[in-house]
Order: sequence, then C-alpha cells, then structure tokens
Amino acid sequence: MAIITLTTDFGTDDPYVAIMKGVILGINPDATVVDICHTIKPQNISQAAYIISTASKYFPPGAIHVVVVDPGVGTSRQAILLSTQRALFLGPDNGVLGYVIDEAAPHIEAYTLTNKEFWLEPLSNTFHGRDVFAPVAAHISTGKPLAEFGEALPTLATISIPRPQTDEDGLVIGHVIHVDWFGNLITDIRQDDLPKGRLFVEVGGHIIDYLSTSYEEGEELMAMVGSDNRLEVSIKKGSAAGFLRADIGDEVKVGINKTSIKGRSR
Amino acid sequence: MAIITLTTDFGTDDPYVAIMKGVILGINPDATVVDICHTIKPQNISQAAYIISTASKYFPPGAIHVVVVDPGVGTSRQAILLSTQRALFLGPDNGVLGYVIDEAAPHIEAYTLTNKEFWLEPLSNTFHGRDVFAPVAAHISTGKPLAEFGEALPTLATISIPRPQTDEDGLVIGHVIHVDWFGNLITDIRQDDLPKGRLFVEVGGHIIDYLSTSYEEGEELMAMVGSDNRLEVSIKKGSAAGFLRADIGDEVKVGINKTSIKGRSR
Amino acid sequence: MAIITLTTDFGTDDPYVAIMKGVILGINPDATVVDICHTIKPQNISQAAYIISTASKYFPPGAIHVVVVDPGVGTSRQAILLSTQRALFLGPDNGVLGYVIDEAAPHIEAYTLTNKEFWLEPLSNTFHGRDVFAPVAAHISTGKPLAEFGEALPTLATISIPRPQTDEDGLVIGHVIHVDWFGNLITDIRQDDLPKGRLFVEVGGHIIDYLSTSYEEGEELMAMVGSDNRLEVSIKKGSAAGFLRADIGDEVKVGINKTSIKGRSR
Repeated sequence: MAIITLTTDFGTDDPYVAIMKGVILGINPDATVVDICHTIKPQNISQAAYIISTASKYFPPGAIHVVVVDPGVGTSRQAILLSTQRALFLGPDNGVLGYVIDEAAPHIEAYTLTNKEFWLEPLSNTFHGRDVFAPVAAHISTGKPLAEFGEALPTLATISIPRPQTDEDGLVIGHVIHVDWFGNLITDIRQDDLPKGRLFVEVGGHIIDYLSTSYEEGEELMAMVGSDNRLEVSIKKGSAAGFLRADIGDEVKVGINKTSIKGRSR
Repeated sequence: MAIITLTTDFGTDDPYVAIMKGVILGINPDATVVDICHTIKPQNISQAAYIISTASKYFPPGAIHVVVVDPGVGTSRQAILLSTQRALFLGPDNGVLGYVIDEAAPHIEAYTLTNKEFWLEPLSNTFHGRDVFAPVAAHISTGKPLAEFGEALPTLATISIPRPQTDEDGLVIGHVIHVDWFGNLITDIRQDDLPKGRLFVEVGGHIIDYLSTSYEEGEELMAMVGSDNRLEVSIKKGSAAGFLRADIGDEVKVGINKTSIKGRSR
Repeated sequence: MAIITLTTDFGTDDPYVAIMKGVILGINPDATVVDICHTIKPQNISQAAYIISTASKYFPPGAIHVVVVDPGVGTSRQAILLSTQRALFLGPDNGVLGYVIDEAAPHIEAYTLTNKEFWLEPLSNTFHGRDVFAPVAAHISTGKPLAEFGEALPTLATISIPRPQTDEDGLVIGHVIHVDWFGNLITDIRQDDLPKGRLFVEVGGHIIDYLSTSYEEGEELMAMVGSDNRLEVSIKKGSAAGFLRADIGDEVKVGINKTSIKGRSR
C-alpha cells in the first residue's frame, strides 16, 4: 500500500489539488491519496510546518507527505525530499518542513529533486505541485530508490520558523502558529518547553493563571496542553481568537505562577 | 470492502480529520474513507443528526459511519456503537445518532465503547475522534465482533433532538434543522408528518399556499418535499435563508389550506 | 482501475456529494472517486466548463468525469454522456461540457442518458446527481457498453459559453471565467488566441504592457500565460481580483503593444 498526503495553500475552489491527484493516479493507480489541508493561509510557511508535523505522526510508517506552500516557485529555491525514520516528506526548501526536521534530526536522509526524468514536461514556472512534487511522489510510491530522484544533501540549512525562546527571567515566549476552526490558538510551545511548577499564561493582555486538563474543566478563557502536545488557548463555547482578537504570529508567554500575578487574572 | 464515513464539526482548515484518516489507514490499509461533512456548525447536534441520517441511506449495507460532534468530550458522556439492519454507527451518546435511532428502531443492537484495548494511548481529553472513534471504526472494519468493543446496552435513552409536533388544530409545528449551500431550509417535517389535503406552509411570517414539485415549477418562495423526503423551503434563483433571515432552529408550520388563509399569501 | 471525478456546485456543507459517493460505491466498490471542485458558484456554467476542461487533462485516460451544475434539473434539459479520445464526461446539456467539446471535436461520441434501468428509483425532480449521474457513472466504470445508457446523439448543439472574439483592429476580447483562491483572474483567452508580437493587456481600466513568465518576475500587476495555457492576471503578494474589483464575466483585452499605449501603463 502507498499513502500520499497533500498539504497546500491552493484552497478547494480551484482544480489545482485535483490535478495533482490526477497526475499521481496516472503514475500509480493504487496510491491512496489523503488530503491533510489545502487552506493553509496563502504562503504561510509556519502554519504549514505545524500542520504537517502534527498530522504526519498519525499516518502509518512509510507514508509520503507532500507539502506545497511555495511562494518561491519558479525561482532558484530547492525542492527537497526527506526520509525520516517514520515517513517521507517532499516540499520546497523554505521552512515548510522545519518542524519535521527539528523532530526527526539527526536521523534524516535528504535529497534535492533535480532529476527531470520524473517531472512533467514542459515544466511550468508556477505549478511545481503538478509538475514536480506530484509525479515524484507517485514514482516514489511505486518503490523507486530515493537516490534516483536527485542529489544527496549532506547538510540541511537551519530554517527560520518560529520556535519559543526563554528570557532571563525564565519566561517562555512563544507564538500562535495556527488558529483552528473552533478559534483555539495553537502555539509553538510544546509540553517539553514548559517551565516546571504551577504556570500562568499571558496572551493578548490577559493572564490565565493555571493550565486546564479538559475543555469542560477550564474557566472561560483557558490554557491547556492540547492533543498534539502543544500549548493552546481556548474559550468555553466560543472562539478565543475572536475574543482576544488574536491571530497567527501573536506572542504567548508562560511563566511560573506567583501570588502577585494571580491578582491580575480575569 | 470496508467503507468508513466521517461526519464532524472539525472544519477543513485543521489537521484533525486527516489525523483520523491516518489512524484508520494504519489499522486497516484497505478501508475506503469517505468524508460526509466536516463543517457541522460547532457542536450543533441536530444538524449532525440530520446529515448522517440522510447520507447514510445511500451508502452500501455494512458501511461504518463515524460521527464526532462531541461537546462533552473528556466528560462522562458515553461513546456508543449502533448496529442497524443497514449499517454501523459510532458517536457520542448525545443525540447525534437520534434520527438514525428513530428510523431504525427497534432493530438496533447497541454497545458502549469501553474496551480500551482498541484505543490510542495515551487517551487525550479533547480528541476522542482520533483516540477512540477512528481506531475502533478501523478495527470493526477488519471484521472483529462488535461485542469485543464494549458492553451491550439494553436500552437507548430517548434523546432530545427536534421532532415536529401537531397542535390541537392539526397544525404541524416543525423546525429548520439545516440550511444548505443554496440557502434552502431543510426541516424536521417528513413526508409522513404532513396532513392530508392541500397544504399551506408558514415560515418567517410568510405563507406559502401550496407545495411545489420541482424547483422550476414553484413560485418565487416555495415549499416542497425535497430529495430526502423532508419538507424544505426554497426561493427561485436565491437563498430562502437570506430572504427570510431564517436559520437553524426556526419554526415552520404546515396546515390544511383554507380560502381565508390563501388571502394572506404573498 | 476506474476513476470517477466529481465537479458540482453543491458546496461541502451538505450531504449531497457524499450521497453521490455512496451511490457510486454501492454499484462499484472498487471505484476511486476524486473530488475536483464542489464550490462552483451556484449555477455558474462557464466556471464549471473551465474547471473540468482544465482538470480532466491531467487524469489518466479513461477516467469518468461527472459534472453536476444543473439549474434546469427536473425540466426537459438533456443529460448527456460524451466519449472523447481521452476520457468520458457526464453532465447536463447546458454548456458545462462546452470547453471539453471545443477541444475534443470532432472526435466525440455522444449519447443522451435515457435508459432508466440504470437510475435510482423513484427519480427525484431535484437531485439527478444522485439519481442519474452517479449511478450511470458507476455502471459505466464496471465496463458496460456506452450504448446501453441511452440514444446516440448525431450532433451536439453549439452551446453559449464565453469564447474570446477578435475585433476589426485585431484586439482580442475575452472574459474572466474563474477567480482562483489567490485572486488570480483566469480568462477564456488561450495561448493560441494571442496575437503575435509584444502584447499589452487591458483589464479593469489598467494596462499591463507585457507578459511575464513567472509570478516572481512580473511587476506588481502582471499578465501571463498560466499553467493551463490560459491568459491570467495576477498581482504580486495580493489578490488581483481584490485590487481590480474584478469578477467572473469581466472583459479582458489583449492587443499588440505600441509606444503610444505603453505611455498609459501604470
């Protein structure tokens, strides 16, 4: 069995995603193609990086994950192929695979896609999802050795996607990297990044003075470690993003709770 | 062949649905997973109940239908498994399977999902779609006996989802349970619930004084029994929901037409 | 292998598309069903015609493409089946297959769908996607001869969907037929329709004085022949549709560039 997943910023109103599926099924009729998300905010690399890092963990070993959020298409940016202990990943070398690399390093084989033999002709300047990533993913799914698709990359560049920082006072400063359908704010702060102790969370001028363990248990505005091990901020029966007027990129801070700070909570 | 359908309020901007598919394909690579709807209004149980009841009728016998609209996730609400003469259904015991139960009763076997052997570990408090429903559906699709997944439920609670009432004057009082993409208002009034005779329909202060038989035939604002045997209210080349400012939950009344009432029609 | 694609204006909030899939899988459990687009603007025939014409080129030979954008459902409009050298197409005879016909003519076999043996019963007046197109497509995918489904059509009517015209001055006058997710304006002007020479494009009161070859290369507002061989108008890091307040149906003109016109460019 071959599973190929697709994550793009192409939306679902256009034929672009279906065209990629047509190309894949033309090469490997037995591939199972699964949509992860096609409504990444246009060209939002850190959101795509979060989505593929989270979703890919739940797919069977050997799945082939294609990520096409590619503002530099048609320029000299590289198309890369990564093989981790769990799965294969294809995408532009612009950070969309940044969290995947963080988590899998150093057990990664990497290649640049340079062998045009597996691409559609003529190569367009605007749609490498169709011309490069879809056909290469389909050929990989038929069992071809990875080295046939391009050159081995000895090192992977460090790519600038948001990662939380700890300041001199031990305050962890992270960012909203995704706003989900319910209005929950997902952050780049993982369980492992949290200080030890009773915590407070500061976001959008509000202080939340402890972590909840379920959506039912919390106060109105609450913070909890969500199902993907990331700190998220929610509001009961409503949208935290709407209430806080928060969006991707906003700062979220976590610190050790003290009495003086509790006084400021809502 | 195993078909597993998914109906949720998870939206399509998040990785949640794809994660459920990844879990399913990891357990049963041969499952065919079909999306029914992921844009149920957040936590709108009666809308989900309508969608799964309508859609499931057209799937082949033995399909496994998973419904995750689950505001009580992480609390003591039960997860249930129903076997009807036609199909299998999984969901929380909160009414999302109410119309399915209405239609299949009394030929239903019911179970609570209690056997953690088939769940993902660790069980989260927020995402039982991933941790309970997806893996259980996948294991069922491989042919495991239903009794392995939990305890038989001798009775099913009556669950409060909208059902039409008839008042002392013979007027049938129902509700809008879904507004479709075209702005058509779908009601909980079925063909069988309609009085006999020439009918009028009252909705949003307007009277429609007969039932049409096609979208082309009707007057501007029209009522008809739609393709799923439910009374629906439409407007020609427009959105009835927009014109009437109507939404889910609004009352719709049907009665026997009389001359005096015809005088009030638009 | 049998691939059946679906293109509709049903949206993705309703059970309609899933119902079509259920019907198909009940008849041919081995069919691979692929969504092309379900958010065609309600009843927008030229947009549907563009989408299926573009997407179908990238599917394997023999794929079965079903297009249900069908404002005349329940009236006397005909349901047709086309067999081109590349693929099969089903849809109402209202122009949704117009560009497909333009491109495949004269190598087309055509049929009207009249054999009710393959339809669902009872036939509704409102949902032939479920009752006619889905079951017929599924039966075709099992290998039944096309002539079993209805009468051969000796001629195909010319159907009025937008096609570019050339005026007496050699100016090519086309139209926007689709606005994609990024706000790019896709036109009915193909590479072959373009005059020879250095070109200018006029749209929404703006003049673009040459054609770009990639999204990166162009000026802010730019015109280029896109990945589907059609002229499109884009804007860097933004929505051309938003900037120009342009929508489907708007005129786009292309002519030979002259010095006097370059003076008018932005």
